[in-house]
Amino acid sequence: MNTLFQKRRADLARWMAGNNVQAVVFEDTEGRRSPAVRYYTNHPEDAILVINNKAEAVLCPWDENIAKQKAVIETIVPYTKYDRTAIKAVGALLKLLKVPEKSRVEIPSITPYPVFLRYVEAFPQYDILCKEEYTHHFAVEQRQVKDEYEISCARKAAEITNRIIDTIETQIKKGKIKTETDAALLIEKECRAAGCEGTSFATLAAGPSRSFGIHCFPNYTDAQFPADGLSILDFGVNYSGYASDVTLTFAKGELTEEQEKQIQLVEKAYDAALHLYEKGVPLRTPALKVDEIFAKAKRKMPHSLGHGMGLEIHEAPWIRAKTEPEKTFQTGMIASLEPGLYDPAIGGCRLENDILITDQGPEVLTRSRIIRIP
Amino acid sequence: MNTLFQKRRADLARWMAGNNVQAVVFEDTEGRRSPAVRYYTNHPEDAILVINNKAEAVLCPWDENIAKQKAVIETIVPYTKYDRTAIKAVGALLKLLKVPEKSRVEIPSITPYPVFLRYVEAFPQYDILCKEEYTHHFAVEQRQVKDEYEISCARKAAEITNRIIDTIETQIKKGKIKTETDAALLIEKECRAAGCEGTSFATLAAGPSRSFGIHCFPNYTDAQFPADGLSILDFGVNYSGYASDVTLTFAKGELTEEQEKQIQLVEKAYDAALHLYEKGVPLRTPALKVDEIFAKAKRKMPHSLGHGMGLEIHEAPWIRAKTEPEKTFQTGMIASLEPGLYDPAIGGCRLENDILITDQGPEVLTRSRIIRIP
Repeated sequence: MNTLFQKRRADLARWMAGNNVQAVVFEDTEGRRSPAVRYYTNHPEDAILVINNKAEAVLCPWDENIAKQKAVIETIVPYTKYDRTAIKAVGALLKLLKVPEKSRVEIPSITPYPVFLRYVEAFPQYDILCKEEYTHHFAVEQRQVKDEYEISCARKAAEITNRIIDTIETQIKKGKIKTETDAALLIEKECRAAGCEGTSFATLAAGPSRSFGIHCFPNYTDAQFPADGLSILDFGVNYSGYASDVTLTFAKGELTEEQEKQIQLVEKAYDAALHLYEKGVPLRTPALKVDEIFAKAKRKMPHSLGHGMGLEIHEAPWIRAKTEPEKTFQTGMIASLEPGLYDPAIGGCRLENDILITDQGPEVLTRSRIIRIP
Repeated sequence: MNTLFQKRRADLARWMAGNNVQAVVFEDTEGRRSPAVRYYTNHPEDAILVINNKAEAVLCPWDENIAKQKAVIETIVPYTKYDRTAIKAVGALLKLLKVPEKSRVEIPSITPYPVFLRYVEAFPQYDILCKEEYTHHFAVEQRQVKDEYEISCARKAAEITNRIIDTIETQIKKGKIKTETDAALLIEKECRAAGCEGTSFATLAAGPSRSFGIHCFPNYTDAQFPADGLSILDFGVNYSGYASDVTLTFAKGELTEEQEKQIQLVEKAYDAALHLYEKGVPLRTPALKVDEIFAKAKRKMPHSLGHGMGLEIHEAPWIRAKTEPEKTFQTGMIASLEPGLYDPAIGGCRLENDILITDQGPEVLTRSRIIRIP
């Protein structure tokens, strides 16, 4: 495991050295979450991380005790040492790493403009960078192609997800799941029992009166689930930090013609898009294909076709029509494929699975499906 | 309810008019959450909201169907209309509101620097503001003093929380809660059954081997709960958007002298701080008092003493030593009081309740306590 984090930091440092960046700052805090801290150090909670272009790194965690247990890094200095003030801590970390004056120091590209101004004022000795297409972007691209360890975590997350899907189908057919809450709590319980850190996002369970919402609100209630019509269950688990993300649709009782047509359209879109999740194919290609299929039926999908997942539930690559045409699928990417259609009168239908791009083509890791309930 | 949202927008618009701001943009999206959208419109999900200084407002929601059901606002335009591109949508909303050229238009103060540059480039006809102490700051200050409706929601959240605390104590004493997961799922289930939107954050349940973490990781597991020593349970519920936040400590079996001393210190700090949650008293005063008590015992608390709560689980006011001395408690504020001490060898102890500031003094809304289990 040590080598894993060192390699990631070394790859980053090499890019920095080649682009004349002497140090980069990562920050994982409330309101400005970043998976980079965990990616480069294994520390799973709030912290500031500074890495220089020799791959030396210092971690400044909010909780020193947790960091001592989890972080794979030589130097840890507690945030309390700097009055729990981010800029003060960053200044101290840069000093610890002996970053020379006049260096180019890059702060997160999501740094708010007023905070950026404070950095510039606080560090006249450095050239403070805050750019979208630079080191932080490299870090995002680094994470979008998973290494072997990450793929093993994703496979484990998928395996647990698939077991939960089967359990839910069985329990529903036995009449043991009666409400949206029953379904959500079963997922919560099963994933923890299987050794997960938790669900990868707040489970969405929506009976027919609420399934028209892309993300129903509230995320689950004590309403009957599934009831006659179209119900949606969107959930995922987090295994060692890595997310799965699936959506099942339950079709219960006799459906209207329009409901049947909606299901057929979603399945058609799914099938047409799947074989386009292929190394070298532009990321936007399956999204354009699905848009076309829906447009022919005079329907429109109100969200993207898919997204990468990993330490974040939504991360690069982005499978949508507006993605730049030169961005393509690469071996080692993991992305959702999730066509969906929604209508307050008909209800919603979404089918979502997680696809690993391999040299041999798309590998569907999860087993979501549209489940018919008599 | 209509008047409520109109009044909030009118108060905001009055401030804007007085400070020469013609329009303000709020954005509630993944990675840049803002409770302002819900506060000013009741819409509970992703959206862009623009309000001008005549209190006219337009909402651009990700999910049009949810907005039609929930939002209290005259004009709703779906995000899909603008290719789901934020700057494009903002431009259209400003046009819809007929914001004149050369106006001062304020975007969120948390807008990343590179995005701020894109706004400036996209809207040469406007003076784009992105400032910390301006309209968005006014909005934060507006929300830190709760109106009657908000106080009624907070009371309801507290009442449900208190019932759950009692249930947990009873179930633990009956031996029905055996693991961290049992406690967390009970909370999840009970709060939904009581009509909550959910928990107000991910429940933290930590047995003695993990209670040293300010926020234990993972947030709960299948470990025994509570076990001999000090266990922590930190949770809250969300009622109509409004959060409660409490922490119980369970002291089980015979404790060491050091564990007893730690509990006594936390209780002493709590008692000393409570009567300082008083209209007109500087927000930092109770925090300084607690720091002093802990310092005398050669201990240090690694987090703030308290925080406001409402539509966000952590919001202004901030009860900590570094808060500016001129900021004081005001009637209608709701803030946590949560002294805590943590040590890997001893375990953690935190006592947290939610305090409403009234003209008659601090009103303790919740009933957390340190619970002894034989």
